[in-house]
Amino acid sequence: MVGMSTTPEAPRAGLEDVVATSSAICYIDGQRGTLAYRGFDIHDLATHATFEEVCYLLWHGRLPSRAELGELQSQFAAARPLPEGVLRLMRSLPQGHAMDALRTLASALAHYDADAGESSPAANYRKAVRLTAQLGSLVATMGRLEAGGGPIGPDPAMGFAASFLYMLTARRPDALAVRALDVALVLHADHELNASTFAARVAAATLTDLHSSVVAGIATLKGPLHGGANADVMNMLLEFGESATPERIESTIKARLTRKEKIPGFGHRVYRTMDPRAVHLRQMSRELGRRAGQPHWYDMSERIEAVIKAEKKLNPNVDFYSASTYYALGIPIALFTPIFAVSRCAGWTAHVLEQYANNRLIRPRADYTGPSVPQPWVPLEQR
Amino acid sequence: MVGMSTTPEAPRAGLEDVVATSSAICYIDGQRGTLAYRGFDIHDLATHATFEEVCYLLWHGRLPSRAELGELQSQFAAARPLPEGVLRLMRSLPQGHAMDALRTLASALAHYDADAGESSPAANYRKAVRLTAQLGSLVATMGRLEAGGGPIGPDPAMGFAASFLYMLTARRPDALAVRALDVALVLHADHELNASTFAARVAAATLTDLHSSVVAGIATLKGPLHGGANADVMNMLLEFGESATPERIESTIKARLTRKEKIPGFGHRVYRTMDPRAVHLRQMSRELGRRAGQPHWYDMSERIEAVIKAEKKLNPNVDFYSASTYYALGIPIALFTPIFAVSRCAGWTAHVLEQYANNRLIRPRADYTGPSVPQPWVPLEQR
Repeated sequence: MVGMSTTPEAPRAGLEDVVATSSAICYIDGQRGTLAYRGFDIHDLATHATFEEVCYLLWHGRLPSRAELGELQSQFAAARPLPEGVLRLMRSLPQGHAMDALRTLASALAHYDADAGESSPAANYRKAVRLTAQLGSLVATMGRLEAGGGPIGPDPAMGFAASFLYMLTARRPDALAVRALDVALVLHADHELNASTFAARVAAATLTDLHSSVVAGIATLKGPLHGGANADVMNMLLEFGESATPERIESTIKARLTRKEKIPGFGHRVYRTMDPRAVHLRQMSRELGRRAGQPHWYDMSERIEAVIKAEKKLNPNVDFYSASTYYALGIPIALFTPIFAVSRCAGWTAHVLEQYANNRLIRPRADYTGPSVPQPWVPLEQR
Repeated sequence: MVGMSTTPEAPRAGLEDVVATSSAICYIDGQRGTLAYRGFDIHDLATHATFEEVCYLLWHGRLPSRAELGELQSQFAAARPLPEGVLRLMRSLPQGHAMDALRTLASALAHYDADAGESSPAANYRKAVRLTAQLGSLVATMGRLEAGGGPIGPDPAMGFAASFLYMLTARRPDALAVRALDVALVLHADHELNASTFAARVAAATLTDLHSSVVAGIATLKGPLHGGANADVMNMLLEFGESATPERIESTIKARLTRKEKIPGFGHRVYRTMDPRAVHLRQMSRELGRRAGQPHWYDMSERIEAVIKAEKKLNPNVDFYSASTYYALGIPIALFTPIFAVSRCAGWTAHVLEQYANNRLIRPRADYTGPSVPQPWVPLEQR
């Protein structure tokens, strides 16, 4: 027996274009730049829908009636207050990466969940609703504590986006801020088998519980090649600084491209054209930036987009304009990726429920490239 | 645009036999029942190696010299004491599934890691060593607290398996118990792209950190179709009870098979013959059971194996005899899957380091089976 390939085919690096499962949740046409949740085009959703409607759509496969939407809003509101033990844990964690805190705290929520240990479809749906609401509370409260304030109790009359901003800032947000965050949450809610959703499905396919699957998603989203990119984008903009000239931006970006450095927020595994989500975030970034009296972050972003388009034919992805959008909303950079997690939790859980409903263990093979088998055993004394 | 397949090929359910990556770590020939780590046959490793030697082998690709092994043992010993904050968290978590606790506590370890935020290969290696040692301490201490005792400080002179048993029981274990656990740890340390390792690599491929990747692994291992099976096996044996007759066992198992119920501990995605790991665990289960004056769990297991072999031509996998082995060692059932995690942490981290060294985002596609695109938007009032 020799150390050669155990399978007939060579791996496609990163499973690029490999179909891993069927799914009725998300449609992407990377050539045309089309994205749809459950058949509904992302442009319609970004224009008309709230995040709650999108959650319902992802979980149930159809838009809610007014009564159904009201019920979900009540369930979200009821789930928003965090367990005391989780709040205590949040206060006791040493400073560090906010995604580490979110991962630990989301994992801890499982210990306090009323349906822990239950795995019926009804219990799993309740957990999906609860966890999505709770992640919102976790992230808002993390931001509030980090800013030196005390936790703000949720106002049950508020919608998801408004409640998040209220719990984060202790101020009632205005309509434009609420709509901007709502649109961002809608746009980030699902994206087919992106890495974190795929990780959540790989976990779920062992029939592990819903919290575990979502924790696997959070752990994966943290990476700079995935959700971590939106924070990296904003840090890049801040490094340029408010007063960077268009010329300096252009020459710096070109120099980085020459050094083959990755520019965060550009390029996508699936889209070969404009990421349809970026269109809405670009517009939001411009509007909010002007309103906040800080148009330069948008202007700078536009300049960077033009340079990279000209030099590399790469388009901005969802992370690029979400950075300046969140910044204009006054959201701390540390929370950019956690907010992505709050929104994507809707998609993760929709995919986990779909995986449970028609499950098969996800267990691929590796192409073995190591030493030939068997290597002779050499006792410790003779090494 | 219609809701039809966006890709030319149908998915192979569960990525069965799909090659997801190259890897030099683990060789499996499912037809012949061969398993090797870095070229070394599992039978040689189970006969000659300690878990520490296997960790070194998995991480470095070769067996350690005496000096190198001594250094790793010192590093493990130094890493064993748990941070105070993590011990406090362990005491404060409500009772629940031990894998939930392990997931939360392993995630919390990241907040106290000296290399948090560092991602150099050297830092990642230090984290791999530390986390493997710390998972051992977490699981042993969880068992100790659950039994009503206080945490036992590790004895730096002890090896990995001995230290684990000492911290779990507060008694110095004898040589047979140490060797039995060592063999179990060796046998569970890696298994190519099993679901939890694959989840860890999917996470790592976003360049998320090592702790996050391992947490994704723990979250995935919990599932009853994966690591959770060893606890399910023991619960099945206990349900039969000590005095179950061979006839009753046979008829019960047959009835379950007729009802198409899954019997935990049987069958494997990759092996079409005997799982080579089961051979060693079977022998261990028999020896330890006789020594403990409880030969019936082994006898019962053997009977179940014979029935399922005759009826379904299925072979026991690694989980089947590890159940009665751990039980004979006096280990609580709740810790069976967590111990699997302690051992597999060596493999998870070896795979994560390999992924980092030659990375590409793991991002497959889904075959879309949902409603046609675009669905017409209907305002809330008109639904």
